[in-house]
Amino acid sequence: MKGFAMLGIGKVGWIEKEKPKAGPYDAIVKPIAVAPCTSDIHTVFEGALGEREDMLLGHEAVGEVVEVGSEVKDFKPGDRVVVPAITPDWRTIESQRGFSQHSGEMLAGWKFSNFKDGVFAEFFHVNDADMNLAHLPDNVSVEAGVMITDMVTTGFHGAELADIKLGDVVAVIGIGPVGLMAIAGAKIQGAGRILGVGSRKALVEAAKFYGATDIVNYKNGPVDEQIMELTNGKGVDKVIIAGAKPDIMKTAVKIVKPGGIVSNVNYYGEGDIIPIPRIEWGSGMAHKTIIGGLTPGGRDRMERLIDLVIYNRVDPSKLVTHTFHGFDHIEEALIMMKDKQEDLIKPIVFVE
Amino acid sequence: MKGFAMLGIGKVGWIEKEKPKAGPYDAIVKPIAVAPCTSDIHTVFEGALGEREDMLLGHEAVGEVVEVGSEVKDFKPGDRVVVPAITPDWRTIESQRGFSQHSGEMLAGWKFSNFKDGVFAEFFHVNDADMNLAHLPDNVSVEAGVMITDMVTTGFHGAELADIKLGDVVAVIGIGPVGLMAIAGAKIQGAGRILGVGSRKALVEAAKFYGATDIVNYKNGPVDEQIMELTNGKGVDKVIIAGAKPDIMKTAVKIVKPGGIVSNVNYYGEGDIIPIPRIEWGSGMAHKTIIGGLTPGGRDRMERLIDLVIYNRVDPSKLVTHTFHGFDHIEEALIMMKDKQEDLIKPIVFVE
Amino acid sequence: MKGFAMLGIGKVGWIEKEKPKAGPYDAIVKPIAVAPCTSDIHTVFEGALGEREDMLLGHEAVGEVVEVGSEVKDFKPGDRVVVPAITPDWRTIESQRGFSQHSGEMLAGWKFSNFKDGVFAEFFHVNDADMNLAHLPDNVSVEAGVMITDMVTTGFHGAELADIKLGDVVAVIGIGPVGLMAIAGAKIQGAGRILGVGSRKALVEAAKFYGATDIVNYKNGPVDEQIMELTNGKGVDKVIIAGAKPDIMKTAVKIVKPGGIVSNVNYYGEGDIIPIPRIEWGSGMAHKTIIGGLTPGGRDRMERLIDLVIYNRVDPSKLVTHTFHGFDHIEEALIMMKDKQEDLIKPIVFVE
Amino acid sequence: MKGFAMLGIGKVGWIEKEKPKAGPYDAIVKPIAVAPCTSDIHTVFEGALGEREDMLLGHEAVGEVVEVGSEVKDFKPGDRVVVPAITPDWRTIESQRGFSQHSGEMLAGWKFSNFKDGVFAEFFHVNDADMNLAHLPDNVSVEAGVMITDMVTTGFHGAELADIKLGDVVAVIGIGPVGLMAIAGAKIQGAGRILGVGSRKALVEAAKFYGATDIVNYKNGPVDEQIMELTNGKGVDKVIIAGAKPDIMKTAVKIVKPGGIVSNVNYYGEGDIIPIPRIEWGSGMAHKTIIGGLTPGGRDRMERLIDLVIYNRVDPSKLVTHTFHGFDHIEEALIMMKDKQEDLIKPIVFVE
Repeated sequence: MKGFAMLGIGKVGWIEKEKPKAGPYDAIVKPIAVAPCTSDIHTVFEGALGEREDMLLGHEAVGEVVEVGSEVKDFKPGDRVVVPAITPDWRTIESQRGFSQHSGEMLAGWKFSNFKDGVFAEFFHVNDADMNLAHLPDNVSVEAGVMITDMVTTGFHGAELADIKLGDVVAVIGIGPVGLMAIAGAKIQGAGRILGVGSRKALVEAAKFYGATDIVNYKNGPVDEQIMELTNGKGVDKVIIAGAKPDIMKTAVKIVKPGGIVSNVNYYGEGDIIPIPRIEWGSGMAHKTIIGGLTPGGRDRMERLIDLVIYNRVDPSKLVTHTFHGFDHIEEALIMMKDKQEDLIKPIVFVE
Repeated sequence: MKGFAMLGIGKVGWIEKEKPKAGPYDAIVKPIAVAPCTSDIHTVFEGALGEREDMLLGHEAVGEVVEVGSEVKDFKPGDRVVVPAITPDWRTIESQRGFSQHSGEMLAGWKFSNFKDGVFAEFFHVNDADMNLAHLPDNVSVEAGVMITDMVTTGFHGAELADIKLGDVVAVIGIGPVGLMAIAGAKIQGAGRILGVGSRKALVEAAKFYGATDIVNYKNGPVDEQIMELTNGKGVDKVIIAGAKPDIMKTAVKIVKPGGIVSNVNYYGEGDIIPIPRIEWGSGMAHKTIIGGLTPGGRDRMERLIDLVIYNRVDPSKLVTHTFHGFDHIEEALIMMKDKQEDLIKPIVFVE
Repeated sequence: MKGFAMLGIGKVGWIEKEKPKAGPYDAIVKPIAVAPCTSDIHTVFEGALGEREDMLLGHEAVGEVVEVGSEVKDFKPGDRVVVPAITPDWRTIESQRGFSQHSGEMLAGWKFSNFKDGVFAEFFHVNDADMNLAHLPDNVSVEAGVMITDMVTTGFHGAELADIKLGDVVAVIGIGPVGLMAIAGAKIQGAGRILGVGSRKALVEAAKFYGATDIVNYKNGPVDEQIMELTNGKGVDKVIIAGAKPDIMKTAVKIVKPGGIVSNVNYYGEGDIIPIPRIEWGSGMAHKTIIGGLTPGGRDRMERLIDLVIYNRVDPSKLVTHTFHGFDHIEEALIMMKDKQEDLIKPIVFVE
Repeated sequence: MKGFAMLGIGKVGWIEKEKPKAGPYDAIVKPIAVAPCTSDIHTVFEGALGEREDMLLGHEAVGEVVEVGSEVKDFKPGDRVVVPAITPDWRTIESQRGFSQHSGEMLAGWKFSNFKDGVFAEFFHVNDADMNLAHLPDNVSVEAGVMITDMVTTGFHGAELADIKLGDVVAVIGIGPVGLMAIAGAKIQGAGRILGVGSRKALVEAAKFYGATDIVNYKNGPVDEQIMELTNGKGVDKVIIAGAKPDIMKTAVKIVKPGGIVSNVNYYGEGDIIPIPRIEWGSGMAHKTIIGGLTPGGRDRMERLIDLVIYNRVDPSKLVTHTFHGFDHIEEALIMMKDKQEDLIKPIVFVE
């Protein structure tokens, strides 16, 4: 079968691979629509995961089940499914402890386009189908389904890690698609004022649509100064970092109140360290909690997010600014994520 | 000064009282608008708090500060303020432990029209003004301010106690003004599907406005059976009880999933016990948590809720269905809460 | 093979059954030592689970693996293992949500001697061996291992549900083996004063050994009055119910402070309801949380408890007051749990 | 009156100051015994708080009340009291939010020898006596009382922030008096294995006494390598940092498991940043939470810790290795904390 692969660091292309096989608990899925992710860009062009050879890319897909193993109970060929970017092994000590994202080892719940072939393929393999897939209901669009697999769940996880309390003032740093969903997630978890930090027009408009009450443009001066001024010197209750370089931690810790939380769902692709500023961190005593984590995945998570779409709690389809039809457009869509033109939030590719 | 009082169980009327005095940390406030509460009805007509003689009623008010004690820093005569129904003593062990509602003793954060004169008066006394009052901003209506003091904070507390997780299925039992705010609170804390249990037309419409996705009318059959059917026999993740008799606990425990929470913000005015059904409670082993509590009050709480109004997270003014002008209408408004005509949610009385 | 069974309500006896078979993820274990549990008594003599015919009893065992399925990785024949009373299905939505005890349905993580043959057999079946068994280290006694499977984990869960904070005053109602482990669990989770409620001499001594600072004998007067007097009318921060009839809830709610927790690990075998006393529950507003739950089981749980024994955080072997050698003594040991002689805490039966 | 002061950075000496006066809610206390703290050393000799002129040092004291304000209810002259190092303002928004340590502003609950005269004086001032003092019971030694004021509460807070779960493997980095109490705190909050990182003989012995199961001596090689080896490459569930330079964060994040917590109660006196190692932090996605905070103070906290001493949950008097009699020995004791001789844990100075 055909698939779009990372050939090596900095190189991509179409290759032929053998069609994957399903074990007794697994499923084989053919994609209906897929989307490239900024992390694919990190993986290929920055070598963030290290060297990978001929690994198929992509981890955001809605698809159709074409084959299931003998022990799969809730899915059958022909079912339309949401495939989470994170597909943990549920029979692990880490899952028993509540961290299925890290089942087996750190980050090992992330399989597609990390240490297993991704979804940019004619067919792809899903481990433990009953525990990792979710049915796509008729009243949820394919676009929404694709966005749920990673953008929605990751952005919402940023808000979860921030443990939003009623009326919290929240700063969301980075308003790309994950940041937009962090805004939406903060809004539906109880935030009051939400300050989105970004500058691109399409993103600013979307940020307001999803719940940002203020926009802080880093082109207008240091973000920390702007936010301290906007909050009368008090700072914010919570910060969600959804896109930046390691030095952003200095800003985040500075603007968060004692007792606050800096939540990170950003993937740092470079640098040896992420610097906590000593003085602003109260020399170690400020109760400014710093937490960062990979989104949870799996079936229950997907079903809950699907419900949030069904019941109009969030409309993720607004993330999709560019739509392609035809499997061949995957490369074009991927490169869009690299170049980030003015009006882009997220492209999607329908296979047919 | 003049005030509207409980003269004894079952009896109300206007009386003369001495104008209250402010201690060094206190304020004297004259009401701008007030609202009667179902709990005033319980207090007067059911004797729920026991006998009270010539106690002024009312605990929902927006007012104007007319006098402050020598140590008050943040408020001055002329300030328009939101006065929470719950005004704790902040210098208590209970407050140090995070339960200021019970400062001093159980429920003792509730002072107005409980063991101290209420707000249906020309002037009323507020303990610890800096810690209990909040400024009413110009962009928040008086109506919204009055609703925040009790209805919003109590309903939202029901959702807080239910510890809503993203995509939770929530049943809200009782869709009077507190139940409506429990719905709104569940919605902005992450609920997916929200089933409102009630029947009156005005309430049903408001429930949908505030986020209910399904309405369960108890006139159509047993509530537990209807909800189990609507959820394919699975039940709900969380239940918020916002109005009912003690036997409702049987329904609530039955419909909630293992690992779920039954949150109560209802005030039970009668009966010796509230019955947990043994079998449905897993004979003690189902992890169906039961928690009920008085709303928090105080300044930080009010300011957070005001922010939620400012930033359009909730519009409590939709609760107000009847508006009176003139202090004398307090009795009429109170009786409305007793009679609950078809189109009533909540009346408000502007003093002038 | 031979096994000791519930023949029907009120009837026990030895029967012949086919030796169980292991599926690919399962193990077959032969017991080294087993212990009867009060819940076996409930099951047989009170019919608490309803009718059961020829179901082998017992769910507390340390054993030796004799056979494993093809997919089992961490266990092999000859391994000595701790077998938890609760052996969940880990591939369920309930497990994904953190309630593996209720995997599949309420209480369904409890399989042995509930809806599957128990461990009073020459051989018994363990589902998902890698996820449910734990190795018995050489430096942990078989007695300690057997106690860990249910008594330790259940009692400790009582303390976990009570969410003990540093210096909490805790009442433990019922000081049988589960109550004793609730005391030990409260102690190692930060409790200060611990009041054990019981009267039997052997239990009182053990309660003091495990950390009780005060003993309240219900023969000396109403428990609530005694506890309120001992605490100068303040009551306790937390209550753990580890053995009693439904009416105990009246006592528990009465003695717990506002903001406190009543934690239940007792199995209520009778009555339609468990009564919450209305007034003491603040008419629904006291923040006196009521939570009851079946202990978690599975591998991680067992390994953690084994560690607590290895590192001398608890010595469960003190629970074992009577030791039998020979499989045939199971009946005698079971009847002991029914008759509860003066010096009994817990009997254990070594198969050889 | 006489007091021992920081005259400027690097300079200490005895000075004369006016005796403090009590406001209506305050108390004046004369010390019975005091102890110097490492943070006094940071303050004076490293200038960690910046310049201070003629500020009396010391924040660990047990004393006798000599005067109370008109509004103080629970204390009177002659009462022996435990005086917490942290004496918050309880009437602040931060206290309403649960962070009284930061009442007013970051770290502002820490007053003594920070921005107010300390306890190395003939008399000292305590704000809000009813909310901040605790009675010293007859069955608690003065030594234990002095240790509770800072060492016990700070070390235990390290364990609280680490959110210890039953059977957690915990590394405590730094086994000075705070680290020792972090070990004791981890033990009584449920830790299994506890690895203490240190080398001085007196500290190692005390670490074992308080619950360390393993000692990791940094003189024997890199701490991270030793701990990974001791844990078979798995790392630990929680890390408590109780003494080190900023670079320790690299070690801490490396050795903690995904889903774990790095808890910090160390005061970092130097450096611009505290470095989070990017790769070991999962490039931002490892769920390795980093939290550091000043201990809570106030009355409820002190009373809870006093209870833990009364009920034999911890014996802090083992921390005191050197005892002086006579106010004049304060300087000598302070310098001991600077020089840290082999057999020192903590000196105490009885005023008489």
